[in-house]
Amino acid sequence: MPDLDFIFNPKSVAIVGVSSVADSLTNRNFLKPLLECGYRGKIYPVNPHMTELMGLKVYPSVLEIPEPVDSVVSGLPASLVPKLMRECVEARVKVVTCFSAGFSETGDAEGARLEAEVLDIARRGGVRLLGPNCLGIHNPAAGCTFEAGGSRRSGHVGFLSQSGGNTRELILAGAQRGVLFSKAVSYGNAADLDETDFLQYFASDGDTKVVAAYIEGVKRPQSFVRALRETVREKPVVILKGGRTQAGTRAVMSHTSSLAGSAMVWDAVCRQTGARQVSDMGELADAVLAFSYLRPPRGRRVGVVGIGGGASVQAADDCERAGLFVPPFPPELRRELRAFTTSAGTGIANPIDTSPDVYWEPALYRETVKLVSDCEDIDLVLVMFAAVQAVKRGVEELKRQIEAVLDAGMAMSKPLAIVIFTAGMVEAEKVAAEVGAQCLEAGVPVFPTMGRAARAVNHLISHWESQGRWRCGPR
Amino acid sequence: MPDLDFIFNPKSVAIVGVSSVADSLTNRNFLKPLLECGYRGKIYPVNPHMTELMGLKVYPSVLEIPEPVDSVVSGLPASLVPKLMRECVEARVKVVTCFSAGFSETGDAEGARLEAEVLDIARRGGVRLLGPNCLGIHNPAAGCTFEAGGSRRSGHVGFLSQSGGNTRELILAGAQRGVLFSKAVSYGNAADLDETDFLQYFASDGDTKVVAAYIEGVKRPQSFVRALRETVREKPVVILKGGRTQAGTRAVMSHTSSLAGSAMVWDAVCRQTGARQVSDMGELADAVLAFSYLRPPRGRRVGVVGIGGGASVQAADDCERAGLFVPPFPPELRRELRAFTTSAGTGIANPIDTSPDVYWEPALYRETVKLVSDCEDIDLVLVMFAAVQAVKRGVEELKRQIEAVLDAGMAMSKPLAIVIFTAGMVEAEKVAAEVGAQCLEAGVPVFPTMGRAARAVNHLISHWESQGRWRCGPR
Repeated sequence: MPDLDFIFNPKSVAIVGVSSVADSLTNRNFLKPLLECGYRGKIYPVNPHMTELMGLKVYPSVLEIPEPVDSVVSGLPASLVPKLMRECVEARVKVVTCFSAGFSETGDAEGARLEAEVLDIARRGGVRLLGPNCLGIHNPAAGCTFEAGGSRRSGHVGFLSQSGGNTRELILAGAQRGVLFSKAVSYGNAADLDETDFLQYFASDGDTKVVAAYIEGVKRPQSFVRALRETVREKPVVILKGGRTQAGTRAVMSHTSSLAGSAMVWDAVCRQTGARQVSDMGELADAVLAFSYLRPPRGRRVGVVGIGGGASVQAADDCERAGLFVPPFPPELRRELRAFTTSAGTGIANPIDTSPDVYWEPALYRETVKLVSDCEDIDLVLVMFAAVQAVKRGVEELKRQIEAVLDAGMAMSKPLAIVIFTAGMVEAEKVAAEVGAQCLEAGVPVFPTMGRAARAVNHLISHWESQGRWRCGPR
Repeated sequence: MPDLDFIFNPKSVAIVGVSSVADSLTNRNFLKPLLECGYRGKIYPVNPHMTELMGLKVYPSVLEIPEPVDSVVSGLPASLVPKLMRECVEARVKVVTCFSAGFSETGDAEGARLEAEVLDIARRGGVRLLGPNCLGIHNPAAGCTFEAGGSRRSGHVGFLSQSGGNTRELILAGAQRGVLFSKAVSYGNAADLDETDFLQYFASDGDTKVVAAYIEGVKRPQSFVRALRETVREKPVVILKGGRTQAGTRAVMSHTSSLAGSAMVWDAVCRQTGARQVSDMGELADAVLAFSYLRPPRGRRVGVVGIGGGASVQAADDCERAGLFVPPFPPELRRELRAFTTSAGTGIANPIDTSPDVYWEPALYRETVKLVSDCEDIDLVLVMFAAVQAVKRGVEELKRQIEAVLDAGMAMSKPLAIVIFTAGMVEAEKVAAEVGAQCLEAGVPVFPTMGRAARAVNHLISHWESQGRWRCGPR
């Protein structure tokens, strides 16, 4: 297995096809992010009709760059890529990230021929090809990325994705939610470097503790399944498979020219290897968050703490539908809770539907969470907050309550996750983002609904169960 | 079947248990909303220790009010409600909304006894009882509500809910999403007035075109099923059943003291009657939105228009998993689309993954949507926008594009719905709320993800299919 570290840590990058139009796709996706994210390697913009761009000297071609170039990004039209690849071979470039589209994914013969030609030149010349039809790499530690809006902090999530848009989405949404990357890669049509290569890379990469993948098709099924099985033994793997339906399969063909394969076969592969399958990018982010922040609980018994009768019923249904258990609390615990929770309009059996005077009183809410987490029948604790209510009541009061819960969490031996519910209301979303940041700083993950939290926690538990052992988590 | 209109349109309301603490629960939930929403009937606050509150005369008891009182709200402790109910009988009150909790839902004998006593006094005295343990009615046309944060405009959705929190949530979230109510009611423990009463009321209510329900248990199963069957024949019914799991069933017991019943029986009842079951409040709002804004499509064949390769694959999978079809477009349509859509990195087979220059150019995006809607193989059109991108590009440009799509929609004979995707990012949520309002003004519903749009559209189609006929929609 080749070491692909050079792909994620190039000492120099040439960007071919930069434009005098400042916001051109190539400038925006490659040149600007390197400049904004403080990439410390050398940057060589290439365009035969320009001499300077954003303070950098522009070179007429890759061959005219006087120093060695590790990595080349192509923003050229597909028809010009074979010539570029020949130059890259001559210049001993290590990897070409082919952002250019117009290859096999077009479905026409000329596109497929071009892709085969580019691949052939690359392989014979000893240059690795990323893509075509991709955005390439995101390595926050190196400041080397196509998306400057993500977090500059490194983390432990490795993401391999056939879709550039999905990669960008996880980087951006992840910055808000606390999903931090070791590295991510958008690899498009996978003409050369493919899902198996990157899976193996992340399996052995010491910085990566959780692997996430968006995969449309697999180029080398046998190697892939072997790599998947081996990777899951080392760390959790979360997979979103694009193209599970007839229409999805067709869309995959025109997106990355991949053969989607049968959804049934995929399901079997995931079951056998222990990889966790998700059904959209939101669930993928949720699962990655759970793996990043939560120790493996000892079991599936969850204590749910919150407010609202309907919300408690929904929480109980959501948890049990996701495969968790919400056992009734033992009589001693109920007695202790009842000592400070009024009986009218509340529930203390699990879920806890507490009274407003407990929900808005730090000491009492902290005590509630503490009592639940001390209960022997409980393996993890989920605490619900309604950002909708806080819109009226004031975000400061909500912050105090969350602080009290985080405080209880610090002393807990069991995993704690928080749900901040917004019902999609924009004012509540603002509140949720603000207090969510507070939770993440304390190392506690936040989910937008109880259903999503429960599914994420189920992935967490199911992974560690599939490994046949309860051991220390990814962190 | 009794006419319950008097419950939703009281000429006078007495609120018993108002407080000198301005933001007390009873003041906040009942007195303030009536004042803020311009309720035109008489308001009588009741508290023996006060004389004036918020500019209104406070009465020592219901019996001291010199004029007839239609409706009484009780914010008293449960133990004081029997006495209040006796006074209401004497004062010939028509209905008592018992906000007070501490009755059968506590699970103790005294609570159950109190509830039986109150019910007995009410029944013998000819007073209807709403609750106990409920928030009561929301009638925007009358300004009579417990939640002033909802829309003041009336609509055509009737909502009956055993949970006050869920009712409030749908009112608040609905105000942003364009869900407008004829009337809504939170009916709690359902000691007297129950789900069957309100279902029958909404069935015959001329203002109500869509019925939504959150139900934890059914008091009179046979009458309910009959009423449900009859209602579905008249208008769509969307039901969220709380308490489908073991833990959910227990939570239902401590919330409204209801017997949740078997989930399998529920499924069968919904299948047989044609009621649409949903699994959370978000899906309920989505379904209600689809029924409120969309004509019934002729069939399940959806044309999907948007941008992004991964997003298109996900959209195709989401639609087909929800029970819709995403058929490949015929060659003529593809030729027409290809005339102005570059081939590199795009898809035009359905879903359309268009090029950025079409996606950001009003005339071309309008033309794309128009061509798809004109296609004979397509029954409805779903258009995707990424608010995440608009955060960078500017909301004004997104607004222009949406206007172009709405413009195409005006000329369409087929239903159109819009998806504005935010990935949960707060900046994108702000953009989505702003442009979402623009869509609603044009009568086009907005969904937060393609998956949620697809499931809502499936409810719409399945309802009209269950009625064995394609006819004009709810509006």
